[in-house]
Amino acid sequence: MNRADGRADHELRPVTFTRGFQQHPAGSVLVEFGGTKVLCAASVTTGVPRWRKGSGLGWLTAEYAMLPSATHERSDRESVKGRVGGRTHEISRLIGRSLRACLDLRSLGENTIAVDCDVLQADGGTRTAAITGAYVALADAVAYLRERGQLADPQPLSCQIAAVSVGVVGGRVRLDLPYEEDARAEVDMNVVATDVGTLVEVQGTAEGATYSRSTLDAMLDSALAGIATLTEMQRAALAGPSGRSA
Amino acid sequence: MNRADGRADHELRPVTFTRGFQQHPAGSVLVEFGGTKVLCAASVTTGVPRWRKGSGLGWLTAEYAMLPSATHERSDRESVKGRVGGRTHEISRLIGRSLRACLDLRSLGENTIAVDCDVLQADGGTRTAAITGAYVALADAVAYLRERGQLADPQPLSCQIAAVSVGVVGGRVRLDLPYEEDARAEVDMNVVATDVGTLVEVQGTAEGATYSRSTLDAMLDSALAGIATLTEMQRAALAGPSGRSA
Amino acid sequence: MNRADGRADHELRPVTFTRGFQQHPAGSVLVEFGGTKVLCAASVTTGVPRWRKGSGLGWLTAEYAMLPSATHERSDRESVKGRVGGRTHEISRLIGRSLRACLDLRSLGENTIAVDCDVLQADGGTRTAAITGAYVALADAVAYLRERGQLADPQPLSCQIAAVSVGVVGGRVRLDLPYEEDARAEVDMNVVATDVGTLVEVQGTAEGATYSRSTLDAMLDSALAGIATLTEMQRAALAGPSGRSA
Amino acid sequence: MNRADGRADHELRPVTFTRGFQQHPAGSVLVEFGGTKVLCAASVTTGVPRWRKGSGLGWLTAEYAMLPSATHERSDRESVKGRVGGRTHEISRLIGRSLRACLDLRSLGENTIAVDCDVLQADGGTRTAAITGAYVALADAVAYLRERGQLADPQPLSCQIAAVSVGVVGGRVRLDLPYEEDARAEVDMNVVATDVGTLVEVQGTAEGATYSRSTLDAMLDSALAGIATLTEMQRAALAGPSGRSA
Amino acid sequence: MNRADGRADHELRPVTFTRGFQQHPAGSVLVEFGGTKVLCAASVTTGVPRWRKGSGLGWLTAEYAMLPSATHERSDRESVKGRVGGRTHEISRLIGRSLRACLDLRSLGENTIAVDCDVLQADGGTRTAAITGAYVALADAVAYLRERGQLADPQPLSCQIAAVSVGVVGGRVRLDLPYEEDARAEVDMNVVATDVGTLVEVQGTAEGATYSRSTLDAMLDSALAGIATLTEMQRAALAGPSGRSA
Amino acid sequence: MNRADGRADHELRPVTFTRGFQQHPAGSVLVEFGGTKVLCAASVTTGVPRWRKGSGLGWLTAEYAMLPSATHERSDRESVKGRVGGRTHEISRLIGRSLRACLDLRSLGENTIAVDCDVLQADGGTRTAAITGAYVALADAVAYLRERGQLADPQPLSCQIAAVSVGVVGGRVRLDLPYEEDARAEVDMNVVATDVGTLVEVQGTAEGATYSRSTLDAMLDSALAGIATLTEMQRAALAGPSGRSA
Repeated sequence: MNRADGRADHELRPVTFTRGFQQHPAGSVLVEFGGTKVLCAASVTTGVPRWRKGSGLGWLTAEYAMLPSATHERSDRESVKGRVGGRTHEISRLIGRSLRACLDLRSLGENTIAVDCDVLQADGGTRTAAITGAYVALADAVAYLRERGQLADPQPLSCQIAAVSVGVVGGRVRLDLPYEEDARAEVDMNVVATDVGTLVEVQGTAEGATYSRSTLDAMLDSALAGIATLTEMQRAALAGPSGRSA
Repeated sequence: MNRADGRADHELRPVTFTRGFQQHPAGSVLVEFGGTKVLCAASVTTGVPRWRKGSGLGWLTAEYAMLPSATHERSDRESVKGRVGGRTHEISRLIGRSLRACLDLRSLGENTIAVDCDVLQADGGTRTAAITGAYVALADAVAYLRERGQLADPQPLSCQIAAVSVGVVGGRVRLDLPYEEDARAEVDMNVVATDVGTLVEVQGTAEGATYSRSTLDAMLDSALAGIATLTEMQRAALAGPSGRSA
Repeated sequence: MNRADGRADHELRPVTFTRGFQQHPAGSVLVEFGGTKVLCAASVTTGVPRWRKGSGLGWLTAEYAMLPSATHERSDRESVKGRVGGRTHEISRLIGRSLRACLDLRSLGENTIAVDCDVLQADGGTRTAAITGAYVALADAVAYLRERGQLADPQPLSCQIAAVSVGVVGGRVRLDLPYEEDARAEVDMNVVATDVGTLVEVQGTAEGATYSRSTLDAMLDSALAGIATLTEMQRAALAGPSGRSA
Repeated sequence: MNRADGRADHELRPVTFTRGFQQHPAGSVLVEFGGTKVLCAASVTTGVPRWRKGSGLGWLTAEYAMLPSATHERSDRESVKGRVGGRTHEISRLIGRSLRACLDLRSLGENTIAVDCDVLQADGGTRTAAITGAYVALADAVAYLRERGQLADPQPLSCQIAAVSVGVVGGRVRLDLPYEEDARAEVDMNVVATDVGTLVEVQGTAEGATYSRSTLDAMLDSALAGIATLTEMQRAALAGPSGRSA
Repeated sequence: MNRADGRADHELRPVTFTRGFQQHPAGSVLVEFGGTKVLCAASVTTGVPRWRKGSGLGWLTAEYAMLPSATHERSDRESVKGRVGGRTHEISRLIGRSLRACLDLRSLGENTIAVDCDVLQADGGTRTAAITGAYVALADAVAYLRERGQLADPQPLSCQIAAVSVGVVGGRVRLDLPYEEDARAEVDMNVVATDVGTLVEVQGTAEGATYSRSTLDAMLDSALAGIATLTEMQRAALAGPSGRSA
Repeated sequence: MNRADGRADHELRPVTFTRGFQQHPAGSVLVEFGGTKVLCAASVTTGVPRWRKGSGLGWLTAEYAMLPSATHERSDRESVKGRVGGRTHEISRLIGRSLRACLDLRSLGENTIAVDCDVLQADGGTRTAAITGAYVALADAVAYLRERGQLADPQPLSCQIAAVSVGVVGGRVRLDLPYEEDARAEVDMNVVATDVGTLVEVQGTAEGATYSRSTLDAMLDSALAGIATLTEMQRAALAGPSGRSA
């Protein structure tokens, strides 16, 4: 009845956050959800996109990408193909929207936080790991700006953001799917939520099938419990030193 | 208390389906949700994408696009920009996934149904109108193939698919948002479901805010009621002649 | 001796203009030449291209495109291919040049009229239908600007512009070729002219053959007679209400 | 009354053909019309485009381009811009169509002649010089194939093709416009015709103006007389040795 | 007189190789030269490029890229820009050429080793670190193929390949330049060589200056000594376990 | 023992410079190294790239390209492929760097010299011929600016720049390789140097092999002797009239 990796249905994979993985960005975190490893960086850049100029407001943008060597079979490099694929676009937009839900953009002035989530190794749930790790990198970048007196409001983060995948595999609702479960799931849902249990984004997808509303409810229960655990882990990780050299 | 267009909170806009709008595709439907007009075409093409060759299975793919003149302010043409935008990619993928949920791809043999949803006029809810209209075009394309004896299974559609948007506007849950409501909604959700009430896709998004689980439930209630009405309208539309000249 | 659709050699197909097809652009006309249907929109946008800045003159630009579902066999979407094809470029430039011949660009100030001609259904002569319909959309956009007091000269249109195709099919000069005649024509000519019979553009092409000067003359005779009829139809269409909601 | 360069209205600029300018292509001709210099190469390549495979017929394709240093002000390189411009596309297509009018494609078998017209220096009339020079390069390529016994029909060229520009400048019809006349011409026409006086392509354009049919006739008279002279010059050039080392 | 990081002029930065950094590719090595960190992966893929088909020979190709967050100031993502830059192309080609110098391509049969070098953190010398690390990843991929009996010749590596940068900074020849030295170097040279002291590639560049042949000699002396040390380190790293889970 | 073209190992091919080949650029030189012909143009353009604005310094940029008809087998046009290839990028950057080594950019003010090197015919050594010819075009452009009083310092060229290829073919070091030698060379080196014998750029490459340091020395000896001859030829060419019409 147990899963291939021995976990219970509603159990997360081992999760780690390595802060200060890179020295240049204001925040840099290597997040691992089991075999999924995503390098999340939050860089502060001057100015905002053209459509936002003169508003006095800052911006947060995100880009997600996957190293060619991150997947079971080597995947083609999007720079070489000359275009960003639909899946990449979709995930980049999701990460940006999710993080903007917790950040007061007025506090930044007309500056942008650019979040880069580069998947070093993919084993399912890369987008949810990316969001969960990117929140920690964002918190580090906010601390970096606060120390330099560059924030109008010193506490611009109104809540924590974390995300997890959940799905129906062989008729059972399971949390935090690795690749081998994800590939055969009947339903796949990604949930982004806050540390106080409110929702930011719910995306539940059935490819070639449909699912009942009670299944939706069971998936949400599992995901929200997982997210509560993840936000505790974020707090624990952020309680230590940043790992950034002075 | 009422909405700008006089509707009640859980009321759909006037919906029409004009079948046979174009003569060349196997199915062609102009769908209107109030001021939103989307031309949905289902074309049958020989062969399948490379990764599917030799499987004996067919495929269904979808492309969504917007005429430059469809929006309040003229928008730039993606062909001229030389790249398809992230939003376009995201919606195209959603339409394809949604329709594949009702179609038995074995029945097609190694052939592809290409669904094109071109927005002629945009007034909110273009993606949900597109899915709802595209189902009707798909049903016409299936009938076209059936008449020609080109289906292994004469009934490859297992259910109907329809979609609607729902959101929280000024603190009230409202169904089928026009542009002016959509632009100021606190939460925006798109629901794709079947005529038997099962879910295909749920995408609930809060930009710069979060929402409670009870709000999610209220939005789902409203959306599923709206979809029940839409699937009835689809049946009524499909009961008449196809509008296609012989 | 007669044509497949029963027309005489120098007879036009049934032509209709549906003004106000879209609500957002200043002018929007669905033009039909038999089975050819082109949606022509004229949008007013602030500013002019960079090379024209500071001149005090306005500009008119045009873009032509074809829906994938408009053709007998579905055609690929240029946005997805990532480049605009040579034929599309050529026709877009022709439409722009043709309409600029009748418009006093000084009257607009430094503003641009963007003309979009999107072919909803193709049955030969799409470029000439586009020009003929786009003139009507342009006239509506000019009226829109005039009503708002945004024209330096209230009558910036010096003449009407219309266009028609003519060709040699099976040795006979024929007007307004549908697809099945166009595909087997020995010579194909597109003529753009004014309501006073002067020429704007003549493009006569023989693919894999040549033609005599007397054939050129006969084709011009037929085309100019057709254009005289088309400009009358334009006047009749413009005499009614614009179809645009206030 | 005379033109800046002392020519009469219906006089061509000095024209030269340097055959064998390059050693690799089967035909290579540097053509000069006054200050306009175009390098025309005709290369024989194995195979035909995909849509023509299995037909047993050959193909001829053409590409026109301009060196950045060819123009008065340096122009940007299209390879660097990452896209071929509309004008370039339009001219490439014209050259290909024009040359296909004289060539029996059955004779080639399933092989392609690729014609490259690269403008080394631009002083008006580059497209007409390109066509006129490309015909000579094509004749050399045909001779090259004939010598190697690679033609089904040893005489696949049914006629000669030449082209010239003509325009109305300051109210006068003038032949073979250099850049300074072209830039201020009221009407501009390009005519492609054969050595027996039949027409291949007529493109007469008025930007921001219109012209009468009698002007069209006068322009055609001048152009056809010019083309008669050009085809004599082609014959004279082809009468000598090819300039190609063995 | 000493360098900012306390090194002597001809001393390397601390160098580490972490084998098995990723689980999916046949070889995966994180190489560090001081603050420069490059993830090098060698993936085995079936088949060879089209121009090599039927030769019976394998191929090795390389792609270099930099994470946006790797540099002092965040750099734009090449996939988003839609084109690979000149510097990236140049380095990718250098890595591929360098590794092909040590690999007997006959041994692979018609298969390709794809080497990906992704810079996680940049502090000067990224291309030379990439080559040095990629050799180790290649050796691991070769071992992987050997274990599976997929090599015609079990020892297809004829030598080791390593690389280092050397330059003239403030008039002194210095080895293995970090970013702050590289940015102000008068001459910059990259040397690729083997463990037996023969040269693979020498690229010595002076931007805005020139250098004498005796300086070239002094730079080569320093580089070849550095490479001798690097090849010892490679051997030591390869002597341990691969770090790859079974 | 002699080479196919009868040259001794250390002998250059016949070299010619045709100044004033084009009339529009400030400097235009057709350089020929045997069968290799490159058209080098130096155009003066107002302004500098964005990253250099406000510095008071000028810039020199270079673009290299090859006509499709320049090679033995016709090559595809990069504008049509929509991207500049890696080899093209690499050579363009080399030419720019090499010429900037001799030019005092302060002298230009904030203006740019754009150098275009278009290969009309390729027979080995196109990049080195391009650099050698481009120097002469640059000298002509500098004289052009000097005559117009547009140089802060009338002698902004500190030295001459020339380049030559050298390689090991059949075990012998040979200078200035034509295509048939280049294609089978074991080692290939390009050297850029000044008229006083200092080095600008050394690029020595072994594809699928390695070479000893003594071979490197022998190649450098040969290249520097060749470059001494080339700089004499440049001086002789520049001693005559510019070939540019007033």
